[in-house]
Amino acid sequence: MPPRVLSGMRPSGKLHLGHYHGVLENWLKLQKQYECFFFAADWHALTTEYADPKEIRENTWEMVVDWLAVGIDPEVSTVFVQSSIKEHAELFVLLSMITPLGWLERNPTYKEQLKEITGKDLHTFGFLGYPVLQTADIIIYKAQKVPVGIDQVPHVELSREITRRFNYFYGELFPEPETLLTDAPKVLGTDGRKMSKAYNNAVYLSDPPDVVKKKILTMMTDPARKRRQDPGNPDICPLFLTFHKFYSDEKTIAWVRKGCTTAGIGCIECKQSVIPKVLERLKPIQEKREELSKDRERIWSVLKEGSRRAGAVAEKTILDVRKAMALE
Amino acid sequence: MPPRVLSGMRPSGKLHLGHYHGVLENWLKLQKQYECFFFAADWHALTTEYADPKEIRENTWEMVVDWLAVGIDPEVSTVFVQSSIKEHAELFVLLSMITPLGWLERNPTYKEQLKEITGKDLHTFGFLGYPVLQTADIIIYKAQKVPVGIDQVPHVELSREITRRFNYFYGELFPEPETLLTDAPKVLGTDGRKMSKAYNNAVYLSDPPDVVKKKILTMMTDPARKRRQDPGNPDICPLFLTFHKFYSDEKTIAWVRKGCTTAGIGCIECKQSVIPKVLERLKPIQEKREELSKDRERIWSVLKEGSRRAGAVAEKTILDVRKAMALE
Repeated sequence: MPPRVLSGMRPSGKLHLGHYHGVLENWLKLQKQYECFFFAADWHALTTEYADPKEIRENTWEMVVDWLAVGIDPEVSTVFVQSSIKEHAELFVLLSMITPLGWLERNPTYKEQLKEITGKDLHTFGFLGYPVLQTADIIIYKAQKVPVGIDQVPHVELSREITRRFNYFYGELFPEPETLLTDAPKVLGTDGRKMSKAYNNAVYLSDPPDVVKKKILTMMTDPARKRRQDPGNPDICPLFLTFHKFYSDEKTIAWVRKGCTTAGIGCIECKQSVIPKVLERLKPIQEKREELSKDRERIWSVLKEGSRRAGAVAEKTILDVRKAMALE
Repeated sequence: MPPRVLSGMRPSGKLHLGHYHGVLENWLKLQKQYECFFFAADWHALTTEYADPKEIRENTWEMVVDWLAVGIDPEVSTVFVQSSIKEHAELFVLLSMITPLGWLERNPTYKEQLKEITGKDLHTFGFLGYPVLQTADIIIYKAQKVPVGIDQVPHVELSREITRRFNYFYGELFPEPETLLTDAPKVLGTDGRKMSKAYNNAVYLSDPPDVVKKKILTMMTDPARKRRQDPGNPDICPLFLTFHKFYSDEKTIAWVRKGCTTAGIGCIECKQSVIPKVLERLKPIQEKREELSKDRERIWSVLKEGSRRAGAVAEKTILDVRKAMALE
């Protein structure tokens, strides 16, 4: 058996190129190598969206349809929704009992997010316990590998510590999950900031061609290049760093680099050279999405089947846990 | 329909007279008046016993056999084990998201117990979240009444606040649980302290007659009455305050009061007057216990059937919750 990988994504609705290049391309690779469990983390979404969760279900649908559209294959990988597997919650309760408060309070990501995320009251019990729930998500499947970006390494380290503590008290039931470090390339949005739904600067996988075109044509470039005749610097140009980097071949990149730095080409011309490549990449994804969207129930059926498979594993694990803790 | 009552007890093993007079006699009354759900709180036991939970299951059996022996009727009341109903855990996760940390940190019982309970590290996430789990326990059955002693009123108040917050965010799904204030009479152990397994001073419901007799005969009395000829004070005599109070008729009490304060009777004589009454009360309980104990599986079957009934209610509630929170 190949090692088991677990990865989740919060249901934030339609996915954009940031998700695609940052996460999904990696998932597609993992799917070929490992036994993968991919889940929609709707309970995690509640840690920040508890006051207004009404879009979670719709967002789950929109996210999962994009997963399948890009090539996540529910016949190969187990694709499911977190909240449909009650054993995540049961293990969360049990892990709560052994997790020292200090580990959670000292978690750097926790402190950072409390500061950074404004406009929402995150001083809740659930937000503090985020890493405990995440640990339950991972070890309920006895996953050995967790693909994360460098910034999430401390979270997985915390999961390893909680797992070790469980094994110490109740016997070696769980493998310690290992990080599978993936480089999460920076994908910039139309305003030059990190591509994000919240910044309203994203190009979505499901954007129609004319929308994609318009977004790229109006995208920010090197801000120092004010006039056509000014030379530009591709290395600080958001358009170059995102679109040419992911979509252009070496020859085009050389052409852009030379044309930009010598003012030989203008930004519009530069943009127009990459637009067809982007549309070409999106075309099969959008065709698949459209096909999948014809019957809305289909996505729910896929998730139901995935939940059945995930549930069978989770049930087996929780029974072992209950026995190890003398609850069964 | 009569209002629904929920009450739980941590599985601490065989029950003693402190449990009997403090809780079970009240349950027997409630059983006649209300629709009762009585549960073994094994997850709650883990908040303090996580490091060594191996006796939880055995303790559950011993506790529940005592419940039934005193007259809790599983045909009338729903008797079950907390950990067999995963919906408690699911609702715990969801309530976690909306419970402000400050409410839990400021909980006076929490602070008090951190100080009082030594020898165990209670600085865990689960111990802090105790009132959240307790709230889930109550409202998953939409229980309207929670019988508690005066010292637990703040806990139920916290449950009411969490419930109000849920209703505020997601609609009026739950009744606010009300306290059903019960006077928990103080039952003293053989050393004059509160009767408790931990103090090794308890008279158990299942103690054979000669053990009961011996425990009573060696029980502490008014410490100021050093010699037979000293007059005593029944109002500070542990034996009087516990045994005569619960087992003697008015006539006997008058006889004791007079004999003790005038040194007319000695402590042994006083004790011997109450022993037959205690044994008489315990006899049918012990007979029932013995009958129930013949087939150990029977208690588990009773609990399984109770869990089936409790589970049906809990499943219905959690579906409403999931809909209200847009997870379904």
